[in-house]
Amino acid sequence: MPTILPLALVADELARLRSVNPLVHVLTNEVVQEITANVLLAAGASPAMIVAEEEVTPFAAMSGALLINVGTLYPARLAAMRQAIASANAAGVPWTLDPVAVGVLDYRSEACREFLAAGPAAIRGNASEILALAGFAGSGRGVDTTAGSESAVTAAEQLARATGAIVAVTGETDYITDGTDTWATPWGNPIMTRVVGTGCALSALVAAFTAKADSRLDAVAAACAMAGLCGARAAGECHGPGSFKSAFLDGLYQVTPDLLRELVK
Amino acid sequence: MPTILPLALVADELARLRSVNPLVHVLTNEVVQEITANVLLAAGASPAMIVAEEEVTPFAAMSGALLINVGTLYPARLAAMRQAIASANAAGVPWTLDPVAVGVLDYRSEACREFLAAGPAAIRGNASEILALAGFAGSGRGVDTTAGSESAVTAAEQLARATGAIVAVTGETDYITDGTDTWATPWGNPIMTRVVGTGCALSALVAAFTAKADSRLDAVAAACAMAGLCGARAAGECHGPGSFKSAFLDGLYQVTPDLLRELVK
Amino acid sequence: MPTILPLALVADELARLRSVNPLVHVLTNEVVQEITANVLLAAGASPAMIVAEEEVTPFAAMSGALLINVGTLYPARLAAMRQAIASANAAGVPWTLDPVAVGVLDYRSEACREFLAAGPAAIRGNASEILALAGFAGSGRGVDTTAGSESAVTAAEQLARATGAIVAVTGETDYITDGTDTWATPWGNPIMTRVVGTGCALSALVAAFTAKADSRLDAVAAACAMAGLCGARAAGECHGPGSFKSAFLDGLYQVTPDLLRELVK
Repeated sequence: MPTILPLALVADELARLRSVNPLVHVLTNEVVQEITANVLLAAGASPAMIVAEEEVTPFAAMSGALLINVGTLYPARLAAMRQAIASANAAGVPWTLDPVAVGVLDYRSEACREFLAAGPAAIRGNASEILALAGFAGSGRGVDTTAGSESAVTAAEQLARATGAIVAVTGETDYITDGTDTWATPWGNPIMTRVVGTGCALSALVAAFTAKADSRLDAVAAACAMAGLCGARAAGECHGPGSFKSAFLDGLYQVTPDLLRELVK
Repeated sequence: MPTILPLALVADELARLRSVNPLVHVLTNEVVQEITANVLLAAGASPAMIVAEEEVTPFAAMSGALLINVGTLYPARLAAMRQAIASANAAGVPWTLDPVAVGVLDYRSEACREFLAAGPAAIRGNASEILALAGFAGSGRGVDTTAGSESAVTAAEQLARATGAIVAVTGETDYITDGTDTWATPWGNPIMTRVVGTGCALSALVAAFTAKADSRLDAVAAACAMAGLCGARAAGECHGPGSFKSAFLDGLYQVTPDLLRELVK
Repeated sequence: MPTILPLALVADELARLRSVNPLVHVLTNEVVQEITANVLLAAGASPAMIVAEEEVTPFAAMSGALLINVGTLYPARLAAMRQAIASANAAGVPWTLDPVAVGVLDYRSEACREFLAAGPAAIRGNASEILALAGFAGSGRGVDTTAGSESAVTAAEQLARATGAIVAVTGETDYITDGTDTWATPWGNPIMTRVVGTGCALSALVAAFTAKADSRLDAVAAACAMAGLCGARAAGECHGPGSFKSAFLDGLYQVTPDLLRELVK
């Protein structure tokens, strides 16, 4: 039974993120670029979407972290991703994989298999995606998940052990594992599934937290906790997905390490 | 004189949409991808923007409906659209055409002419676009319309008869026709023209409603009514286009068949 | 010491913008297309993102102004930009350059050097970008600026004299210069740096104001003032970057020449 991540640890990780203010090189899908950038800016990181094969190699090497999201993959973007990953690996920059809808379409499944072998620092997906990655029979449908996150915990642990990546399988409860230890962050809210990009932006936040992290397990778990806690608060304040998004970004901006420590008392 | 669409019929169509929760394959322009996805998610459909030639053929066939929007057309996207349409047609998946700025620029006009011959289930445009499609002399300027929707009703009816598609010409009042019967939905509000993507997202909603529809005419009209009614309510609550968008998405999420039936009493 | 732009002049320029309602051809980066379109629509211009090499030549010639933003440059978009600029120049359409992260990556630096020689009507950047363009040693990091805008005023004046463009260097105070006269607009707010696209959208607003302008210096300065004043009001009302964006768009829509003239009294 995984332990719930202590808020004091989230507070420490958030303090570190804001002190580092990492430059995050984002290679993501066409749909979620704005919300991804806004989530990173609100939380305290600096996003940059540098996409051309002519530019990704130097830029990945000068970044604090890299995100690879295959949501709208096509050949030019795939080529840029390969170069960015190679450059990040050479420079010791941690990179995070968001395997959107892996297992549903062969082209992206092949790309994800290839990326998996290139050594991501972290992987963030829903249960179907993590099951597919781990070689289980996924039943994914686009970007929706049809299985609860708890059904993929064992697969996530196996995937973490096989790849060396921290694996986060997210849903109403998120599970974050290095294959040995597993944290749970139980603050997911169904309304987040009605706002496009909340999962993709969480993957970018995962990438941001891995920059200069002492413990990648704690860093990735803290990213999930930040999204979950701010999402839960926004869900309580909003009137639907439009006002949710606004309140969610406000919350990521307002939350401080001290506010998190206050919650514990 | 077209009849105003009864709200009881909108309620029935909305109940059907929420029960089907259709997967909508969206091939749209670069500018409106996020709002399009959010409108579909709020209303009760599942969008997926799958754009690569390597992926559109299998994905269109497994979707409930397909949207083709030519707003930012270029060769790779045009090739993907051709494949997606062929696949949708082969699988019996209904697809909707949004002919953004047809008649203004030759490249997209040629593409729209070609798409028209491929048999769309529905077409959604403003008066200039529908007039251009119908072979009338359009006077379009980018995505604006310079003619009221009523000026294009006859053209819409001719276009519907010539192509077999349901044609929706939208503006302050929307007219939806199969060439014989025509519904009117009179809830358009000028502020919607100051928020990018409201028309494009309506076309995606039209596509969503056509999935497993008993009557495509009623389904397309119900999509227009949903956007109009939620837009009118949001217009009454908002302080400008920023707060309009948030309230519009909230309204699409909050509205239920029962609420619509209450409005009739 | 630059003079603060009088609000009466902003009012006159805004009245002109709303009367002209210019069609603005926008070639910008992938991340900010929606907010850019929404800022233009709220302020009173008509954006159109026409991106294909097959379409940009006729469209740039029929537009009132053109924006070139190199944020996510890649070969196909660069080719379209070159054609659009040539067409705008031939037709006498003023175009604005936003040199995002120039000086940080060679590919875009080369493109910006080339564009500079093609005669932009206006240039809008942060201090690092203007310093880099002016041939000073920039210390840019992605799209952030690490230097205050005042540090680049001399560079901006030199750049304006060398190119004939109006140059706006923006930050907490914006400086707008033709190389001889320089206006200051002191209404910038730090929260705008936590919302992606506020700078890019300002460049689009600069382009919109240059359409049919009597004085390009006053027009560009008025664009900066509009963004600054509406940003300052939104910053005072909001709870974070999510609600800021909504309030900012509402403000651009609500503000009128008369409201600006009232502020002077």
